[in-house]
Order: sequence, then structure tokens, then C-alpha cells
Amino acid sequence: MNRLKRIEGQVRGIQKMVEEDRYCVDILVQISAIQSALKNVGFAVTERHINHCVSDAIKQGEGAETIEELMTVLKQFSK
Amino acid sequence: MNRLKRIEGQVRGIQKMVEEDRYCVDILVQISAIQSALKNVGFAVTERHINHCVSDAIKQGEGAETIEELMTVLKQFSK
Amino acid sequence: MNRLKRIEGQVRGIQKMVEEDRYCVDILVQISAIQSALKNVGFAVTERHINHCVSDAIKQGEGAETIEELMTVLKQFSK
Amino acid sequence: MNRLKRIEGQVRGIQKMVEEDRYCVDILVQISAIQSALKNVGFAVTERHINHCVSDAIKQGEGAETIEELMTVLKQFSK
Repeated sequence: MNRLKRIEGQVRGIQKMVEEDRYCVDILVQISAIQSALKNVGFAVTERHINHCVSDAIKQGEGAETIEELMTVLKQFSK
Repeated sequence: MNRLKRIEGQVRGIQKMVEEDRYCVDILVQISAIQSALKNVGFAVTERHINHCVSDAIKQGEGAETIEELMTVLKQFSK
Repeated sequence: MNRLKRIEGQVRGIQKMVEEDRYCVDILVQISAIQSALKNVGFAVTERHINHCVSDAIKQGEGAETIEELMTVLKQFSK
Repeated sequence: MNRLKRIEGQVRGIQKMVEEDRYCVDILVQISAIQSALKNVGFAVTERHINHCVSDAIKQGEGAETIEELMTVLKQFSK
């Protein structure tokens, strides 16, 4: 949650940079920083998901569908 | 600017999803959507930068440094 | 295995393009094609790994370490 | 060219790992290594392209089309 608040602040920071007509390269560096931050949130959510939902489904012998869903979302996320 | 406002809204949307303890996979799908949106903003900024700063520098015979700077930021952005 | 043979052929194809001094953009399009193909192989290996090693470890109550290892390699792979 | 020869060797290395039924995680680490190597080749080709074709087109006042083509291939490459 803290990380998402920080990302929201970073997105607003970029809006300010665009308004102030700041140097494109500086804006791109900031966008890259947000992308890294978002990726980290995504990995944290993925890990949590595997540790809970996926693990529970596997233990109950119902892993197949959950793993397929996980792979679909991983492909989207790693695009 | 409109796109950045929309991205800010999407980040707040994810915060709400986390607060409401929504399904991890749905959160990941939303994170992927923001990543795509951010990438598009980044490409728009890159294109603008090449069309203006980089082109001007090249026309004045001073492209070398600007192109090197562009490559550095592209590598960061495409990581 | 078939996919890896095809990727090897694609890499050799790029070598030939470089030797023949082909247009840079065409080479980049080919490199992008290999990256997609490699990503697909990576996802296939990941899915197999989750379906076997990770699932087995979870069923035996020893998922923690295997999931941590999976996350480390996913982060590297999605960089 | 040397880098492409090395990448070809790495792809053959993975084929061998698959044949020998090696640990999935080790295969994924190798795939990630090839992806990094390919990305570096791609950036080298991009830099060369901007330094030559794109710069020449801009100097002759015909940058627009070349820059559009560059952006298209960058989007594909950074996917």
C-alpha cells in the first residue's frame, strides 16, 4: 500500500514535469523509475498469490486451473 | 497529460483493490494495464525528444552526445 | 526442443543479415522475433516447473524455498 | 558478430540442457542470459542505425519517415 501511494506521487510528479515543460530525458528517467516500482509491486502480489491461492489449490489437488490462470497473467505482466 | 491523469486514476484504483482485498490476479491484470499505459507515454515522450532535441542537435552537427544520452535512457526504459 | 532448434536457426539468420550488411531495421525486427520466441520457451519451462517441482514441493509442505527460488528466476526472466 | 556467435552457442547450450533433462530453474537462468545478450545486440544495432541512417535522413531534412520507422521498431523491440 505504501508503495502504491509512492507510485501515485511519482505519477503526479511526472504531470508536474510535463506542465513545466521539463527536459524529455528527465521525464523518461522518471517513467522508468515508476515502471520498476510497479514491477516490484507486481512481483510482490504474484508471490503472495502463489503462496496463498495457488498453494491452497495445489494442496487440494486442484492446481491445474489456478496454474493456468497464473501463467496467463504472468505472460501479460512480463510483456 | 490526459494519459498521465488516467494513469494516476488507475494507480488509485489499485490502491482501492488492495484495501478491499480483491483477488490477486485481478490486481495483476490492472498493474499490467498501467505498465502498458506508461510504456505508451514513454514512447510518446521518446518520439517527441527525437523529433526535437535529437534532430536539432544532429542538424547542428552535435548529434553524438545527444544520441549517446538517448541510448542510455532507452536502455533504462526498455529494461 | 523444436522451438530451440528454430531459435538457433533464427540466430544464424541474423548473422547472415549482419554479414550481408542488411538494413538495421530489418535486423532489429528479426531480433524482436527471437526475443518473443525465447520468451515463449521461457514461459513453457516456467509452467512445466510450476506443474512439477513447485507443485510437488507444496504438496510435501516444503513450498516456501521453491517458491522463493521461482520468484528470483521470474524477476530475472521478466527484466 | 562475435556476440551473435556467442548467442548461437548459448542457444545450443540450452538444447543440451533440455536433452539432459536439467533443472528447469537453471534453464530459465540461461534463457534470461540470452535475452540480455540479445537486448545488447539490439541496442548496438539501434545506436548504429540512429548514428547513420537516421542522422543522414535528418540532415537531409527527411527525418520524419525514418523516425516514425525507428519508433515502430523500438516499440516492437521493447515489448
